[in-house]
Amino acid sequence: MSKETHLPFSPLTKDVLERLRDAAGPDRVVTDPERMADYAEDASRLRRMPEAVVRASDASQVRRLFDLANRFRFPVTPRGLGTGLAGGAVPVLGGVVLDCSAMNRILDVDPVNLIAVVEPGVINGELKKAAAGEGLFYPPDPASFDTCSIGGNAATNAGGPACVKYGTTRDYVLGLEVVIPTGTLLHTGVQTRKGVVGYDLTRLLVGSEGTLGVITRLVLKLVPRPPAVTTLVALFRDMVRAMEAVHGVLTSGMVPSTAEFLDRRCLGLVGDLLPCEGANHAGAFLLLESDGHPEVIRREIERMGEVCLEKGASDVLLAPDAAKRERMWDVRRQVSLRIEESAPVYIPEDVVVPLGQIAPFVSKVPELEAETGLEIYCFGHAGDGNIHLNITASGEAAPEKVEAGVRRILAEVLRRGGTISGEHGIGTAKKRYLSMELAPDSIRLQRDIKRLLDPSGILNPGKIFDE
Amino acid sequence: MSKETHLPFSPLTKDVLERLRDAAGPDRVVTDPERMADYAEDASRLRRMPEAVVRASDASQVRRLFDLANRFRFPVTPRGLGTGLAGGAVPVLGGVVLDCSAMNRILDVDPVNLIAVVEPGVINGELKKAAAGEGLFYPPDPASFDTCSIGGNAATNAGGPACVKYGTTRDYVLGLEVVIPTGTLLHTGVQTRKGVVGYDLTRLLVGSEGTLGVITRLVLKLVPRPPAVTTLVALFRDMVRAMEAVHGVLTSGMVPSTAEFLDRRCLGLVGDLLPCEGANHAGAFLLLESDGHPEVIRREIERMGEVCLEKGASDVLLAPDAAKRERMWDVRRQVSLRIEESAPVYIPEDVVVPLGQIAPFVSKVPELEAETGLEIYCFGHAGDGNIHLNITASGEAAPEKVEAGVRRILAEVLRRGGTISGEHGIGTAKKRYLSMELAPDSIRLQRDIKRLLDPSGILNPGKIFDE
Repeated sequence: MSKETHLPFSPLTKDVLERLRDAAGPDRVVTDPERMADYAEDASRLRRMPEAVVRASDASQVRRLFDLANRFRFPVTPRGLGTGLAGGAVPVLGGVVLDCSAMNRILDVDPVNLIAVVEPGVINGELKKAAAGEGLFYPPDPASFDTCSIGGNAATNAGGPACVKYGTTRDYVLGLEVVIPTGTLLHTGVQTRKGVVGYDLTRLLVGSEGTLGVITRLVLKLVPRPPAVTTLVALFRDMVRAMEAVHGVLTSGMVPSTAEFLDRRCLGLVGDLLPCEGANHAGAFLLLESDGHPEVIRREIERMGEVCLEKGASDVLLAPDAAKRERMWDVRRQVSLRIEESAPVYIPEDVVVPLGQIAPFVSKVPELEAETGLEIYCFGHAGDGNIHLNITASGEAAPEKVEAGVRRILAEVLRRGGTISGEHGIGTAKKRYLSMELAPDSIRLQRDIKRLLDPSGILNPGKIFDE
Repeated sequence: MSKETHLPFSPLTKDVLERLRDAAGPDRVVTDPERMADYAEDASRLRRMPEAVVRASDASQVRRLFDLANRFRFPVTPRGLGTGLAGGAVPVLGGVVLDCSAMNRILDVDPVNLIAVVEPGVINGELKKAAAGEGLFYPPDPASFDTCSIGGNAATNAGGPACVKYGTTRDYVLGLEVVIPTGTLLHTGVQTRKGVVGYDLTRLLVGSEGTLGVITRLVLKLVPRPPAVTTLVALFRDMVRAMEAVHGVLTSGMVPSTAEFLDRRCLGLVGDLLPCEGANHAGAFLLLESDGHPEVIRREIERMGEVCLEKGASDVLLAPDAAKRERMWDVRRQVSLRIEESAPVYIPEDVVVPLGQIAPFVSKVPELEAETGLEIYCFGHAGDGNIHLNITASGEAAPEKVEAGVRRILAEVLRRGGTISGEHGIGTAKKRYLSMELAPDSIRLQRDIKRLLDPSGILNPGKIFDE
């Protein structure tokens, strides 16, 4: 490895700020500390003030910004709508935050070709609405779907409950317009449903957490809107039975459009929201959905309910209407908030294990709690093994003890063939755990790719790995 | 661009051959011309004799081969089972063909975690069988599925009729073990259904046509085996009506597991295989399937038939049993063979257009034929816009006229928002058209990535682009 380092960066001088204003337009450069404070953090609660914010409205402004960053050596941290949980949008080394939220036009929703063309600042939920207006569906649905941006979704390869049936953001990005840090404007991929011409630059950029380029336009695959959806909740004495039910459903020729779970600890916090006695003390909760043709899904959800009962569910509730469905989802949606409120120290991890390891892992949790002195809440996406592992500790817990506990828990995930992040990414928050999962040769190659696209290391430095 | 060139390579000397035998074992090195002849071509019919063939049985032999190739400067062309249509496995610059077909173990088919672990030489159809034995399904189904290798499928991101519902090979490769040309053994990706840790090296390698690394092991996603499948064939007066039917099906909340089409010219060649009068003179043919729960798919296929009739189908035939289904598929399967036999000059192109452009493009074909003097047969995957454009010419057609005609046709595809390859890849056969689709900046970046992973340019040189 070459030893030349990209650091330290230079602070933004008055002269550079003047050039930024020339490049982007004076009203697009923010230096007022009060306004900049909004750009200092994302949903990870990590925090660092930028030296300036540039609110770009098109790719040419991004190119000019990169040109200045290369010449005057300041970091550029791209930001969608700041809902990331790994600190990917936090300007950890100062410099400029590149706010992409003003590039927020839905340029096309095409019901014939089943694609959308959008700018990166479009809110996920707004695209969903626009697609629905044409009878179409954009499936990726991170929990923050009504506040997060499509550009950020692509940068992190965002997932959500719909993944079990529909896949992640990666599966919906057909092509990109992107500015790489050298200032080159690239068009990657296709606007068709298939394409194998050259290397898959699209998917190299998707999930690269804004370290390889800034997306300025996306061509997205849409699918026909499922005409109806139906929901059930099942309660179980323990996670083993619940996961047997999920496996039974998955291997019965049905593909649920959602398969969410909560563990015993989570139910202790949110079970009261369920219209069902004793839910607070149940061992596991499943929320299953089927979407599609009304007649088909009615039969499917009944069959899913039967599978749950066969596998030992103590209660199965069907949602006969939208209001009841909302109540069921409320349980799942409230859980992170209530966990966060339950303790002063709150660490949201986001691991994935092979499907067959969900129950064994969750069953191991009490032992891990005893070992680490932490409280561990497990909930998430049972259909793909993605466990939102919310770890809490009392205010007196020593930080180094918490850190050692988190490492112990992640090691257990890896030992079971898992990965340390399924949706949130590495960003800043998990950078120190990267080498637990990736071998030095893999990290070295990734660093080399980073250096190829960003020779002076100006774009989102300090994320994923150190340069 | 740096002007240092990797060429010319050095011929294999006796000394190097001796070292190859030491590295791989003497019985694993083939130099007998008669046996080597089998390795001179793939299904593209492009041809060049290698200087030697190494039949590797594990990753360590691949590493040792790369080490020798870097030291003694000879090209290494990896080969699965040689079914590629773009010349990707042809040793166009001589050197060693690395035969991966002996690495052909199915190491695991795991019905709990719904994954398979295989070596690259496993035949696609063998994996399908092994998966079926566990109630599971490996969907990617290139036409050559009973003779092509999983490693080659991953190298080309192979597709097939099932893509419309199930996606391409890329969507099933969770993780790879791969030897890159520097000799480094890398593990990419995950063995779980999600994972966003670091850059997506897996999908950088998938579809890179054996130019960035040699896959020595794959972790593949499996899905539950659909318990039943049902089939219909519909005939139409013209392609416009047929594509309206496909669109009608796709936007009705149903996802067909196959949506194949043939145009008028193809029907002229294979219509006689259909149990239906006048099929030879119909304007378009659709083959639709639905897979899943028997009761559900019976309703679905009936509904698909209704949509076809609503959109003006002149005939709709349902396959009541497996034998009838085979006869229907035979029509689709025989078509390339009969086209190939119909004329001395035969060029299989493999384009994709946006869904709404299939009918307008096919309607334009008679005009393109008149303009170019070629005969153009269109068939393929209606659900994703992937048209196998089989171009033929009489023996007297001047090669430069054929070449100009092909360029004219590909330009028309690109003008309509399409791409020049949806399944076959670029290889050698389409390299000269690459710059019709990709901008110089994109090609430059891809070359740089190639150089990063393969600094001395030993791996599959002369493919996709010139170095």
